[in-house]
Amino acid sequence: MNKKTIVLLSGGLDSSVVLSIAIKEKFETHCLSFRYQQRHQKEIFFAKKQVLEQKPKSHKIVNLDFYGGSSLTDNLDVPKHKNVELIPNSIPNTYVPGRNLIFLSYALGYAEYLGCNSIFIGVNSIDYSGYPDCRPEFINAFEKVSHLSTKKGIQGNKVIIHTPLIKKTKKEIIKLGNKNKINFKNTLSCYSPKNKLACGECDACLLRLKGFDEANIVDPIKYL
Amino acid sequence: MNKKTIVLLSGGLDSSVVLSIAIKEKFETHCLSFRYQQRHQKEIFFAKKQVLEQKPKSHKIVNLDFYGGSSLTDNLDVPKHKNVELIPNSIPNTYVPGRNLIFLSYALGYAEYLGCNSIFIGVNSIDYSGYPDCRPEFINAFEKVSHLSTKKGIQGNKVIIHTPLIKKTKKEIIKLGNKNKINFKNTLSCYSPKNKLACGECDACLLRLKGFDEANIVDPIKYL
Repeated sequence: MNKKTIVLLSGGLDSSVVLSIAIKEKFETHCLSFRYQQRHQKEIFFAKKQVLEQKPKSHKIVNLDFYGGSSLTDNLDVPKHKNVELIPNSIPNTYVPGRNLIFLSYALGYAEYLGCNSIFIGVNSIDYSGYPDCRPEFINAFEKVSHLSTKKGIQGNKVIIHTPLIKKTKKEIIKLGNKNKINFKNTLSCYSPKNKLACGECDACLLRLKGFDEANIVDPIKYL
Repeated sequence: MNKKTIVLLSGGLDSSVVLSIAIKEKFETHCLSFRYQQRHQKEIFFAKKQVLEQKPKSHKIVNLDFYGGSSLTDNLDVPKHKNVELIPNSIPNTYVPGRNLIFLSYALGYAEYLGCNSIFIGVNSIDYSGYPDCRPEFINAFEKVSHLSTKKGIQGNKVIIHTPLIKKTKKEIIKLGNKNKINFKNTLSCYSPKNKLACGECDACLLRLKGFDEANIVDPIKYL
C-alpha cells in the first residue's frame, strides 16, 4: 500500500492540523482547496500560507461554480452570539448544502487520478455546528459509495477516509496542532472576517476562542 | 411532495430521453450540465438545443476545474472498433474517475438549494461501457449517503434518485425517445466527433448505431 494521500485543506484551523497529522504519519500529501464562492474566500490565502509552511507535495485549488443557499455564500447575516453557550442547538444558516459530499467526491476522483489510497478530512462532530456532513454516519456511508463508484474501488483497492479529528474537542485539536508546530496565525476560522480581523462572535470564532482558552494557549490572531 | 426535480443533462441521447420522461411525468424540471474539460464539450451545445426544444423550467451549466485521467478529458486515443461485438469486456479508458459521484453530489446540493425532492440521471447498465458509477449498486449507495449528508435528508425529507433507463437496452431507450418525440438530431453520443460528424467507431457510436438498427429507426445524425 503506498502512502500517497489527498488532504482537504480549507485554510481553517482544523484542516491545517489535519495536514500536519498526515505529514507526521509520513504520507505523501496532496492538498485540495475549493473556491466555491464562499464569502470568506480569504481562507484560500491561509491555505496557501499553510502549504508554504508545511510543504505538502502539491496543492490544487479548484474553482467551482456554486449555487449557494448558505450565509457563507449568499448575502445573508452570519449568526453571531455573545458567548459560546448561546449557540442554539440547531443547524445554522452557515450550513452549505452538499458541500462535504461534493468536496469528498471530487477528492475521491482526484485520489484515483493521482493513485492515492486515502483522503484526510478535518470533519469534527464534537465542537461543531451540527452540520450533517461532519458526522461519522456520513463518512461511513461515503466510504461505502466510494468503493462502488470507482474503477479502483470495484477492483478491491478501496480509498480510506481518515478523519483524525472527528471525536476530538477543539481544545484537543489545538493542543495537537501546537505539538505539531502549526502556526495558528496563518489559519482562518471566522465566517465573516473584516479586513484582517476575525469577528469573535460567529460560531466558528466562539468555538475557536473556547478551544484556545481551555487549552491554555494564546490565540495569535487578532479579533475585532 | 412537490414535483420539482433536477435532471442531469449531458446533451447525449440518454439524458435527452430522461428529460422527456421527467417532463411527461409532470415534473418541474431543472437541468444541470457540466463543463469538466471534456474534449467533446460540443455536447453542451446539444444540451442547450434540447433545452430549447423540450423547455424545462431552468438550465444551469456548471464550470468545474477538473483533473482528468480519461481519454475523454486528456490527450489519449479513444478506443475504436470495427463493430460492436469487438468492444472488450473491460472498463475502457473513457472512464472518468469520480464523474457520476461528483455530478450527483452537486445535483444533490443543488436539489436542496432549489427545494427539489428528486434527481433524474440517465445511467444505464445494459448497453454501456462497464463504468462502475452507472450500476444500480452505486445508485443505491449514493441514495444512502445522500440521506445522511443534507439537512433535509436527516430531517426525513429524502431525495430520490430516478434512473428510468438503468435496465433498458439502447433499442428500448431509442424507442422511448421516439415516442416522446425527441429530436435525435440534436443529441451527441460520439466521444470524438470531428467537425459536425460522429466517428462511428467509438463505443458510444457503436452502441448508438446498434440501438437504432435494432429499433428499426433511422439515426438522423451524420457519421464520418
